[in-house]
Amino acid sequence: MGTAQRKLHLNAFLMSTGHHEASWRLPESDPLAGTDIRHYQNLARIAERGTFDSVFFADSPVIFGDVGRRPAGKLEPTVLLTALAGATEKIGLIATASTTYNDPFNLARRFASVDVVSGGRAGWNVVTTAGPDAARNFGVDDQPAHAARYERAAEFLDVAGKLWDSWDDDAVVADKESGVWADADRVRPIDHEGKHFKVRGPLNVPRSPQGYPLIVQAGSSEDGKDLAARYAEAVFTAQQTLEDAQAFYSDLKARTAAAGRDPEGIKILPGIVPVIASTEADARRLEQELDDLIKPEYARAQLAKTLRVAPEELALDRQLPSDLPSEDSIEGAKSRYTLIVELARRERLTVRQLIGRLGGGRGHRTFSGTPEQVADAIQLWFENGAADGFNIMPPVLPAGLEIFVDHVVPVLRARGLFRTEYSGSTLREHYGLERPLNRYSGALAGLTA
Amino acid sequence: MGTAQRKLHLNAFLMSTGHHEASWRLPESDPLAGTDIRHYQNLARIAERGTFDSVFFADSPVIFGDVGRRPAGKLEPTVLLTALAGATEKIGLIATASTTYNDPFNLARRFASVDVVSGGRAGWNVVTTAGPDAARNFGVDDQPAHAARYERAAEFLDVAGKLWDSWDDDAVVADKESGVWADADRVRPIDHEGKHFKVRGPLNVPRSPQGYPLIVQAGSSEDGKDLAARYAEAVFTAQQTLEDAQAFYSDLKARTAAAGRDPEGIKILPGIVPVIASTEADARRLEQELDDLIKPEYARAQLAKTLRVAPEELALDRQLPSDLPSEDSIEGAKSRYTLIVELARRERLTVRQLIGRLGGGRGHRTFSGTPEQVADAIQLWFENGAADGFNIMPPVLPAGLEIFVDHVVPVLRARGLFRTEYSGSTLREHYGLERPLNRYSGALAGLTA
Repeated sequence: MGTAQRKLHLNAFLMSTGHHEASWRLPESDPLAGTDIRHYQNLARIAERGTFDSVFFADSPVIFGDVGRRPAGKLEPTVLLTALAGATEKIGLIATASTTYNDPFNLARRFASVDVVSGGRAGWNVVTTAGPDAARNFGVDDQPAHAARYERAAEFLDVAGKLWDSWDDDAVVADKESGVWADADRVRPIDHEGKHFKVRGPLNVPRSPQGYPLIVQAGSSEDGKDLAARYAEAVFTAQQTLEDAQAFYSDLKARTAAAGRDPEGIKILPGIVPVIASTEADARRLEQELDDLIKPEYARAQLAKTLRVAPEELALDRQLPSDLPSEDSIEGAKSRYTLIVELARRERLTVRQLIGRLGGGRGHRTFSGTPEQVADAIQLWFENGAADGFNIMPPVLPAGLEIFVDHVVPVLRARGLFRTEYSGSTLREHYGLERPLNRYSGALAGLTA
Repeated sequence: MGTAQRKLHLNAFLMSTGHHEASWRLPESDPLAGTDIRHYQNLARIAERGTFDSVFFADSPVIFGDVGRRPAGKLEPTVLLTALAGATEKIGLIATASTTYNDPFNLARRFASVDVVSGGRAGWNVVTTAGPDAARNFGVDDQPAHAARYERAAEFLDVAGKLWDSWDDDAVVADKESGVWADADRVRPIDHEGKHFKVRGPLNVPRSPQGYPLIVQAGSSEDGKDLAARYAEAVFTAQQTLEDAQAFYSDLKARTAAAGRDPEGIKILPGIVPVIASTEADARRLEQELDDLIKPEYARAQLAKTLRVAPEELALDRQLPSDLPSEDSIEGAKSRYTLIVELARRERLTVRQLIGRLGGGRGHRTFSGTPEQVADAIQLWFENGAADGFNIMPPVLPAGLEIFVDHVVPVLRARGLFRTEYSGSTLREHYGLERPLNRYSGALAGLTA
């Protein structure tokens, strides 16, 4: 696979004081950064200076873990994206939202509005929201089963897609003389009736600059990969080794082709937590300093919850018990469960060591080294069928993003792997993707009618 | 009632090219203004220059009326407020959202986020969303009954209030040394279990600058007034005559006292559509020009829908039929229905004349005159027990807001009725209201525990 034409895509995954769970304890960190809009505006501007394709926010409608352990307060992501739209000009803006705990009309409308306000820079990371804690904020005592959540997600995406296409791009005629604002034949009810949703439409937002937000997906279970193959244009994934990443990459590209789509239309971005310093030893020292700030009692309780065992079954200085449940029996965050168990077994990690690895990136790959070494690690995967780009997860913010932009990005640019300036103005243009046609009008309607 | 201390409150009710339904047809109007964030940012800055308390947006999760007739595309209001927060510094930002077609956790979270991002300037106009068209965007074939919608609204507000109070103001201790981010005892589940909702909490946003957004209400039915008396801090209302406005004002203040609240804690703002020119004759001419641009066939169909009759029963040059249904049988927008019928009967308007009056402000009072006359009309109601302020609904935007700010506001200031600069920084401070205590902590918890 040559690199002459092909360019790397970089997404900045932003999270309060950084991805390392102890980052808020560093002297330079602002522990209230998680709800400080100026902090995020600063981060987005740094990423834009580095010509990143996009910034991204994870989300769940619940407090994750213990509020004593690390910053738990956060801003609702579509509100956050809108505030960032006004502070930036080019960079894409991707937020996570749940198909399990939203209505399609409301959410389709909100993302269309963000796409309008940002001039075509909105993206939606589609999640089904695992876990009973989130369910209990919505009147449900236990989470819906994994398969049911994915079935609803697929229908949700169908409904949202119909709503986004319910206005033709040229529906508004604005004829002041005759007093006709829009052509009523080009703004249509969608009359969706399915197993999970019954929605009449049309949407009350005209078709947005991108047609609809970039669709992102991050589930790596079988159901997650199938959903991505059908709908996603970018995929965030957690892979620890080149071999696993290659297998995931080729599997998902094949599933996308099997779903009748161009495999080039789906961009795969593994996560990487880069711990960067001017020497490899300094980078390892920084990683160790962060890990030493983790409070193991909190982290062990969280790990036990993920593994569905009692905390006291996890001895800090021993390896994981051998009789953990199988992935098939897990109803939430299936692929993350397997990744954690495999990581611990492959590297024979003690619970304490595993906690350190997870504290850095919650299962994503941590890579410590110099800017050149980080660039090498990125290039290796990019050129060997493992990635179309990377989801950059700085362990400490803003410092970890600044050092990446100022020291790794120049190396990637010098190697011809990454853009030196934005050539497009929409998020989809940054990812090299076409603006989607409207299913109800023009050429596409002619094909499918 | 003296005016020495008491100050008028002014809210700018903003809507695409203006409140007059034909405003988009004027040569100077941008027919795409409804989704142009720069248009709204310009309007908010004009209102802020006029030291208005707030700007406000109506909303319904549906296209209202015919897209051929007038601009129908709009932005989701919490997205819109966030974009305005970044473009202004002081003015309050109020958006409408439905308790019928939202989940309390999601909506409480979104408004808390807007309050954080805006530095304490968020307000929520609580509506129950009348009409079967909106219902059909959410899987419901007909709207829930009026009483059921208001019952759900009251419980929704209880749940939202508990969520907003689920974090103590001082819950975040951010102790880097000991590694404790928040005091887990001061971030509590709410464990709400009611008829309509079961929500565990806590919210995943810390308590916001105002504690929670200013609560606004605009329904004037019996159920609406009772909801306002219990929860609202500001009320927007449509009143055509001084006598009706006085009766509404004293009724709502009495209901608020009966609900155990200080009547000063609820600010009542009737709507007014000011058509302003340097002479009264010019103002009337402008009003007539706008009315002449209304297409009666669209407007008649809309009126017929509101009145639950067939369009052909409404002869344009005759008065309304005498056998209209009673308000009791109406399941949506009850008070608006009665207001329209009473307006038509009191002034013996033909259907064509009624359409003109409704085209200007959809039932709100239209007042045409010079800046002095508009100020007189405002002062008369303000000083005679009919209003704590006004909901200013410019027929044409931005021109109608600019002329109000540049020519009416100076008169009101010269008379000592209106502020010359902002003295507070939050929306509640502008309205002269206290920041609410947290029901779970501090003095209030001591009283109620």
